[in-house]
Parts: sequence; C-alpha cells; structure tokens
Amino acid sequence: MRRIACFLGAFVALGGEVVYTAASGQANERAASELGVKLPPGYRDWKLISVAHEAGKNNDLRAILGNDVALKSYREGKLPFPDGAVIARLAWSYTSSEENNKVFGQDQSFVAGPPINVQFMVKDSAKYAATGGWGFAQFKDGKPDDKALLSTCFPCHVPAKARDYLFTQYAP
Amino acid sequence: MRRIACFLGAFVALGGEVVYTAASGQANERAASELGVKLPPGYRDWKLISVAHEAGKNNDLRAILGNDVALKSYREGKLPFPDGAVIARLAWSYTSSEENNKVFGQDQSFVAGPPINVQFMVKDSAKYAATGGWGFAQFKDGKPDDKALLSTCFPCHVPAKARDYLFTQYAP
Repeated sequence: MRRIACFLGAFVALGGEVVYTAASGQANERAASELGVKLPPGYRDWKLISVAHEAGKNNDLRAILGNDVALKSYREGKLPFPDGAVIARLAWSYTSSEENNKVFGQDQSFVAGPPINVQFMVKDSAKYAATGGWGFAQFKDGKPDDKALLSTCFPCHVPAKARDYLFTQYAP
Repeated sequence: MRRIACFLGAFVALGGEVVYTAASGQANERAASELGVKLPPGYRDWKLISVAHEAGKNNDLRAILGNDVALKSYREGKLPFPDGAVIARLAWSYTSSEENNKVFGQDQSFVAGPPINVQFMVKDSAKYAATGGWGFAQFKDGKPDDKALLSTCFPCHVPAKARDYLFTQYAP
C-alpha cells in the first residue's frame, strides 16, 4: 500500500538533503527532525487549492493547500509549475459527526478528525530532475517517513504528467 | 430541507441591509446583487479552518475558511468570536475521480466537482443580536438566496450555542 500512502505527494531530498518538514497540528513550527528536516514556515496558513475524500484504507478527508507560487500557477493555468512552488496535502481521519447528524436528522455528516499526516511536493527542476522536477515528502507527528517509502511517490504521480504530475485540480 | 441547505451558515441582513455576497468560483469579485450584496474581497484566499463531507441530499465536499479575525479566535480557543469574524463555507459537488481510482486500483477517491454554493456567517453582535450575534447568507452563482430560506439558519445553529453557534471545529 505504499503507493497509496504516498498519493498526492510530498517532497523528499532525493539527493540526501531534506529541506522541509511538517508536523501535523503544529503550524508555523520549525522543528528539526532526525533527518535535519525543517517545517515550511506557515504552511497551515497557505491558500486552499481543493478538498478530497479518500475512502478505502486511507479513510481520510484532505485539504490541498499551496504556497503563493503554486496558487498563482493553478489560477493562471500555467504549466509547468515554476521552481519554488510547494503543494501541501493535509489529511485527517474521516470521522462521523454525531452532533451534525442530529441536526440533519440522519447519518450523513463526516468531519475532520485527528490529523493523519502531511505531505508536500516541492518544485525544484534542477534538484529533482529525476522525478519530474518535484521532490516528495510525508510527515507524521512531525517525523518524516523514510526514503524507501517516498521513492514510490513519483512513479505514482506519472499518470498526471500532462498536468505536471499533479492530480489535484483547483476548486473554484 | 431548508434547514439542511442552510447548515454551516452564511449571513443575511436580518435588519434589511445585506453587506456581503459571494460568487462561487469568482474569488475577489465584488458584484452587487439585487439585494445590494457585495462579495467579501478575497474570501477564497482565507485560511482553512476545516473540511467536511455531507452525504445525503447535500452530497458535497466542503471547506470552511475564515478571515483573520475568525482564525485567531479559532486557534486561541476564545469564545465568543469578536465582531468582524467571518466564516465562509464553500461546497462543491462530491465527485468520484476515475483518474485517481485508476491509481489506487479501486473506487475510493472523491474530489471537488462543480461549485454548489457559498455560505457566510458574520459576527456583529449589535446588528445581529437576535440571532446570537451572527448574520447568515448563502450565495449560488453570485446570487444570494432569499431571506425566507436564510431565516432558518440561526435556529439550525442553536445546538452549537456552547461554541458560539459554530459547528465546525478547527482541524490542526
């Protein structure tokens, strides 16, 4: 299931150096991990690209955010994304809301429960030339996943090559 | 089903004057409606509070965004929200993604399809004193829904009185 875990991306330093990290629920933190990873400052404040629900083993609700470089490209429909674009995918447990269901009068409401993990894709066409210009990473509780897991990210994103390897489309 | 349509709010001028409008898919637009409604400038750029999925007749994926005043209160856990706080609820059609399902190898992926509507809750404790200090509104394709519909918003939000009438909780 590694391909599934990685879907919608994040970046890892394929050359050995990892630049960013992300701690679920700890926006604006810049904690160094055992890999020397640092959090993109303020990623939790980035603008919304879209939302999604993955059922199955993922069983999550997710928001895809982007930094200003990424948002500009999305809104202008310009491809490929320029260097500096970073996409964040935040996932939370897909949680039935009893409180909301009472209001609706039926079981229909699912909300974001505890955070699952955070993924990033960062565009650096030189550094990540071997993976379409994108580096990938996934973090859980502030700790980055290992490189073996992340090495599966790019192959999984190849079907979206026509959109510069990004599955997510901007939600107006 | 009016209560369901209104759930998660928006604001309407209960005193007759409506201040804001919202055009789905037209962020930053400031179009005047037949009710004199204007779009909150840049609401599509507001920060993310949480995400949700409403099944049933709603059948949507939604993002709840907030202006800086609202986000500050959410993150600090301070209640009630101060005047000036505005919450936006954007909803899109709950759409199965064939492209994503191929990658996952099973039908599990649901993404944001066409926009459905946008709702707002705006805090003005004097102006909207009769409805917990919140005004509500709902807009579709840039046009505000009528007051008869919106008059049902506040009664629907009363069960969340302990959280200043907001069902949505911040997703870390």
